[in-house]
Amino acid sequence: MNTEKPLILVTNDDGVTAPGIRHLIKIAKEFGDVVVVAPDSPQSGMGHAITISQNLYCDPIKVADNSHKEFSCSGTPVDCVKLATQQVLHRKPDLCLSGINHGSNSSINVIYSGTMSAAVEAGTEGIPAVGFSLLDYAMDADFEPTTEFIKQIISMLLNNATPKGMVLNVNIPKLKATEIKGIKICRQAKAHWQETYFKRQNPLGRDYYWLTGEFVNEDSGEDTDEWALAHGYVSVVPIQFDMTAYKHMDALKSLHIES
Amino acid sequence: MNTEKPLILVTNDDGVTAPGIRHLIKIAKEFGDVVVVAPDSPQSGMGHAITISQNLYCDPIKVADNSHKEFSCSGTPVDCVKLATQQVLHRKPDLCLSGINHGSNSSINVIYSGTMSAAVEAGTEGIPAVGFSLLDYAMDADFEPTTEFIKQIISMLLNNATPKGMVLNVNIPKLKATEIKGIKICRQAKAHWQETYFKRQNPLGRDYYWLTGEFVNEDSGEDTDEWALAHGYVSVVPIQFDMTAYKHMDALKSLHIES
Repeated sequence: MNTEKPLILVTNDDGVTAPGIRHLIKIAKEFGDVVVVAPDSPQSGMGHAITISQNLYCDPIKVADNSHKEFSCSGTPVDCVKLATQQVLHRKPDLCLSGINHGSNSSINVIYSGTMSAAVEAGTEGIPAVGFSLLDYAMDADFEPTTEFIKQIISMLLNNATPKGMVLNVNIPKLKATEIKGIKICRQAKAHWQETYFKRQNPLGRDYYWLTGEFVNEDSGEDTDEWALAHGYVSVVPIQFDMTAYKHMDALKSLHIES
Repeated sequence: MNTEKPLILVTNDDGVTAPGIRHLIKIAKEFGDVVVVAPDSPQSGMGHAITISQNLYCDPIKVADNSHKEFSCSGTPVDCVKLATQQVLHRKPDLCLSGINHGSNSSINVIYSGTMSAAVEAGTEGIPAVGFSLLDYAMDADFEPTTEFIKQIISMLLNNATPKGMVLNVNIPKLKATEIKGIKICRQAKAHWQETYFKRQNPLGRDYYWLTGEFVNEDSGEDTDEWALAHGYVSVVPIQFDMTAYKHMDALKSLHIES
């Protein structure tokens, strides 16, 4: 019988000092040995970026009661996972938790999200992984209502055999714990960002642009993450990293470009 | 009858001066009005990163014969596509071409690739898009053998109705034109990167890390991009941005966490 406690890697994209990851670390410690490898600065919107042309730092942080280990990394969320599994940890972790993100990663946001890309990277390495996000961008967001749902999902993953590379995208509505109706397993809603840019001039007269935009949900399905969140549920979407559009194979083959 | 020429947006991740994009621009100009919005510096491995917390520049570049328009952008490949469609172009482009990347974007590389993320971003906006990559990292790579295959794929996309948001990942082997056997439509091979890091000390005695690694193909299927490339074919993989792992839905539902 293996009596070793589960080894849990924790990371995020808001940076190692963000309130969201502090809350997640507290929860994770109830389930196993926790090692944190997280960015030293905010990395929101970094998607699956990796650092190729520059060196990386990954420095230990002193933890007051020595109850877990923490490292601060100069790279992206994906760099954190790669460095953790290759340089920091003594064995493959049993679980990778990313977040809790300050803000939504539902629907199409998953492709821009550093939080989710860290989880996906762990998935490519065969580690079960979850990205948690709370639909509240505020730095002083109340993470307490997320606690029981996060515990439930961690328990589920640690106590069951899951398909290899299983990655979950978990979004939690900004509600009181008593107002959240429960968990729904969903598909990613079809949606996109309708961008606009602020266009201004810098003090030297050169035009610059600043990204802003509006989230447009094109999907009226009641099996989507957007529907679940709008109706007071925690949304759980299983995520894959095979990007092949199998549904378009036949249309593409019918165009006769193959030799 | 619409007599307007097709409007073709060209971008990449190696930067606007890279030989790969210069070759692609030359080809694209045979098919329509070309507008280039590409990064001002190399952005390899940027994945689907976007610039949220900083301003962006997007400056026109003088083109000697005025035969097309070019802009140099301070952001990521995805920023280039967003800026192009929202600020630079007078209408939605008919096609977005990204590349030609110096190096492979086959298999799992697709999730790290700035080249492919630019194409995927165009896809989310409903624009047919292709990322082209040549399996040769050298800056003086010979792009001439890619020409006829790229023309064939552009023709196919401009002359046929394709599914909304169709994105193609096209990889071209490093062979002479006469040695390339043709085009194969493929699925993404199951593969991962086995990372290693160089660990060194900087002049101040602080440890630093540098990413390196080995590509591991776990997939022996003969319908994959890796198989096609290894056997002298151009690989074409249709790409989706619905990340839902539908194949894991049942396994997940059987764990009874839903309310």
